[in-house]
Amino acid sequence: MRRFATERAKKLIVGSFLSSRSPSPSSHLLSSSAAAAASAMGSTQSPPVTLDSINPKVIKCEYAVRGEIVSHAQRLQQELQTKPGAHPFDEILYCNIGNPQSLAQQPITFFREVLALCDHPSILDKSETHALFSADAIARAWQILDLIPGRATGAYSHSQGIKGLRDAIAAGIAARDGFPANADDIFLTDGASPAVHMMMQLLIRSEKDGILCPIPQYPLYSASIALHGGSLVPYYLDEATGWGLEISEVKKQLEDARSKGIAVRAIVVINPGNPTGQVLAEENQREIVEFCKKEGLVLLADEVYQENIYVENKKFNSFKKIARSMGYGEQDISLVSFQSVSKGYYGECGKRGGYMEVTGFSADVREQIYKVASVNLCSNISGQILASLVMNTPKVGDESYESFIAEKNGILSSLARRAKALEDAFNSLEGVTCNKAEGAMYLFPRLHLPQKAIEAAKVVNAAPDAFYARRLLDATGIVVVPGSGFGQVPGTWHFRCTILPQEDKIPAIISRLKAFHESFMEEFHD
Amino acid sequence: MRRFATERAKKLIVGSFLSSRSPSPSSHLLSSSAAAAASAMGSTQSPPVTLDSINPKVIKCEYAVRGEIVSHAQRLQQELQTKPGAHPFDEILYCNIGNPQSLAQQPITFFREVLALCDHPSILDKSETHALFSADAIARAWQILDLIPGRATGAYSHSQGIKGLRDAIAAGIAARDGFPANADDIFLTDGASPAVHMMMQLLIRSEKDGILCPIPQYPLYSASIALHGGSLVPYYLDEATGWGLEISEVKKQLEDARSKGIAVRAIVVINPGNPTGQVLAEENQREIVEFCKKEGLVLLADEVYQENIYVENKKFNSFKKIARSMGYGEQDISLVSFQSVSKGYYGECGKRGGYMEVTGFSADVREQIYKVASVNLCSNISGQILASLVMNTPKVGDESYESFIAEKNGILSSLARRAKALEDAFNSLEGVTCNKAEGAMYLFPRLHLPQKAIEAAKVVNAAPDAFYARRLLDATGIVVVPGSGFGQVPGTWHFRCTILPQEDKIPAIISRLKAFHESFMEEFHD
Repeated sequence: MRRFATERAKKLIVGSFLSSRSPSPSSHLLSSSAAAAASAMGSTQSPPVTLDSINPKVIKCEYAVRGEIVSHAQRLQQELQTKPGAHPFDEILYCNIGNPQSLAQQPITFFREVLALCDHPSILDKSETHALFSADAIARAWQILDLIPGRATGAYSHSQGIKGLRDAIAAGIAARDGFPANADDIFLTDGASPAVHMMMQLLIRSEKDGILCPIPQYPLYSASIALHGGSLVPYYLDEATGWGLEISEVKKQLEDARSKGIAVRAIVVINPGNPTGQVLAEENQREIVEFCKKEGLVLLADEVYQENIYVENKKFNSFKKIARSMGYGEQDISLVSFQSVSKGYYGECGKRGGYMEVTGFSADVREQIYKVASVNLCSNISGQILASLVMNTPKVGDESYESFIAEKNGILSSLARRAKALEDAFNSLEGVTCNKAEGAMYLFPRLHLPQKAIEAAKVVNAAPDAFYARRLLDATGIVVVPGSGFGQVPGTWHFRCTILPQEDKIPAIISRLKAFHESFMEEFHD
Repeated sequence: MRRFATERAKKLIVGSFLSSRSPSPSSHLLSSSAAAAASAMGSTQSPPVTLDSINPKVIKCEYAVRGEIVSHAQRLQQELQTKPGAHPFDEILYCNIGNPQSLAQQPITFFREVLALCDHPSILDKSETHALFSADAIARAWQILDLIPGRATGAYSHSQGIKGLRDAIAAGIAARDGFPANADDIFLTDGASPAVHMMMQLLIRSEKDGILCPIPQYPLYSASIALHGGSLVPYYLDEATGWGLEISEVKKQLEDARSKGIAVRAIVVINPGNPTGQVLAEENQREIVEFCKKEGLVLLADEVYQENIYVENKKFNSFKKIARSMGYGEQDISLVSFQSVSKGYYGECGKRGGYMEVTGFSADVREQIYKVASVNLCSNISGQILASLVMNTPKVGDESYESFIAEKNGILSSLARRAKALEDAFNSLEGVTCNKAEGAMYLFPRLHLPQKAIEAAKVVNAAPDAFYARRLLDATGIVVVPGSGFGQVPGTWHFRCTILPQEDKIPAIISRLKAFHESFMEEFHD
């Protein structure tokens, strides 16, 4: 540091650069209009970047599932570590986000075996490896390595992802749907979020471009639309019919937006629903497809919860399957399906794997999507491999098959029991009603709050559901996200709670919830 | 499919939805202004998305390193597989992109051991594992797992990345620079590209916001500025002085941009240079820091090639070290340093790991950066782990230390030899001059083409350097990127060629290059 200080002093003396250190540089450096511009942006003295000078779209963007309540929870967690006993609970229970492995869900062994072997292929032909890894994981790792040019898992891949992995995914989609799928339609991405951003970036030209989104919605959509400068056109799901999606409502909102000069480009449908947990009926999906075709809308189908179905009478159908079964092909409907390794029974959020299947776009538009994908080079290869694995799981007769099925069913059936237990608990609370989680990972109970609670919230300048969630957190350590982060019918209040806490903790959570709620209602009784 | 067809027929008959299938739906569904809007966007019949109706910023964006020449190379590669002997070469040599492992560079063993163990931690305490993995890799994996809440490598992390890994990176930066670094300043990202996008998204409000970029530049910058709707303000590097960065040139371009009403927000400096390979002198870096401070510019320092230095008399200095050594702290300069696991001696492009170190921004602006990071939840955990490993490598006494150093030095010294061999080869060609690659992974030779070649290019509507690159590819299978993809002084022509082909192939590559070039010059001799 000494040396640098000396060199700096020397430089100031030698000083070809010295002149530019004069006190009022703009007077001799810039033309008058340039000086005005420089002064307008506050050169020299004030910091170059302030809240007033950043992109206002960034300011506008909100992302509630990692918002203020989570920051507060992180502060509490630190306090619990530094001052044990400082709060009336021992741990923070993060029910704000669909992050299963953060709540002790175990990864699927077969998937992790294959990932580890692909990360360090030089152990593949060592004898000890056979003692540590299942035979089909070893075989699968070889198979995957052979799909990768030069077996180089450390190389950038094709911008859409490794071709052989996309072939496997396309085969998995075809097997799931009973209709063909094409590897050229698959774009592998770091989780589904970048894929959603990519489509928003493609479709949104200005605030005159609208995207129909369900309300309540997953805030990735509102955030992405805000960041890309478009308009969110809301359509409300009907809480009274289990968060039903009514085409008449969508049509009304579309017409309303168009009458305001908004060019509505696309509709987002989340199935199974987030945060609402409903699973669309086939008939309803056909209506949506028909509607998109007729109205010239791109259908953006968020299908990341396709494996998370908890009720006997419902089944996941991809929108592509529905469209094809109606006889609609590439020429009829522009459809993007998003899938992620973060959800399902796998819950591999940290691996950032996912894909979008892009169908019904012209070749020249597809080229533009490819170009945007290529600017980021490719998604991470482990995530790509994992995305291929979830679409191509062990088969009957494979060494891992039995344990794989046991792990998978164990997770899904436990999630179903947890969903039911929490749903029942919420419905048992005074002034709370809660629709069933038919699928996905969330419950979205409605709070019918006493007037006094609403007024108390107003005093601290909080939305009533944010007030409730904050009180819940402070009393129990349970983190839920206020409904306002997802959107809700004005004047109604909700929160989103994941169904992910460990099953053996659910009874205690329910007791804490009940005790808090009773005392809250007692405190604010009308 | 049969079943669906039947159900569809039934639906058409039952038909609550039937009315909306009438031939002219807009007439009864929409108000007249809405119908006009619908018709303007071409509902019903024409496809919802055409090249004319997508975001023009996407159209404008270009990304040459994966552009037309690469698509052509991929076609040739397929032809080589289907029709061996169809071309005068046996393989395509991708010298278009810094992707070392695609050209057989081997990953660093220690890094891959740790990654594999973190992917499948349940083998960590098995005895066979000790036969397969080094002791320090096992210890490091335990250490990393203990930094991760619940040891859950499959969970989303903090939006900036796992705190303990950021601590390790901050310690690595501090050890490198001799100045403190803070984990709260680190944002882990999926490679450096998303970090660059994040900063562009933050800084660019409209086309009246400008970003100073070197010309030639790495096209990520021009692509990202185009996608975010800003203006690239070029400053030219001086080829005659080994791609020198002259502050007088930067100042001239800044003033010129300001006189046109452009608010210049930031300057991109790539050190070591891409595509130009120069390593900045300390004195030059101090000038740049001083300039940014005086002019109120954010310094966006692309430092991803910090380990790639091939000449004795040059050394990498981070801009943060330079700024701190000048006595400038958080209040004086807004500085973002980008680092990636894709480059260096590690070359782990497929892992998509990287980070940016963000210093000198106010707390409220930092919160906005955090918010944007949180919308994508987090970067992939393997990439995060790897980013911590490259900043915290095996130490003397560790079991892996000797082999790690041997692998590292082997790669770097081979890269230096390859850079020199290719530089000499280019300079031996008639009408070609080539600056030294002091660092990074590229050479950027200048082509002094005969007039006849320039005219022949015009006939096929190609830039002369694109014409040359295409002819080179067709004759030799060598893929280079025309200089126009990076920007160059108008009327000059270049191409970028990586130094990455395997060392034992370099002589043959040089022969092919020479033979092609001689025949090209012969053909177009003035």
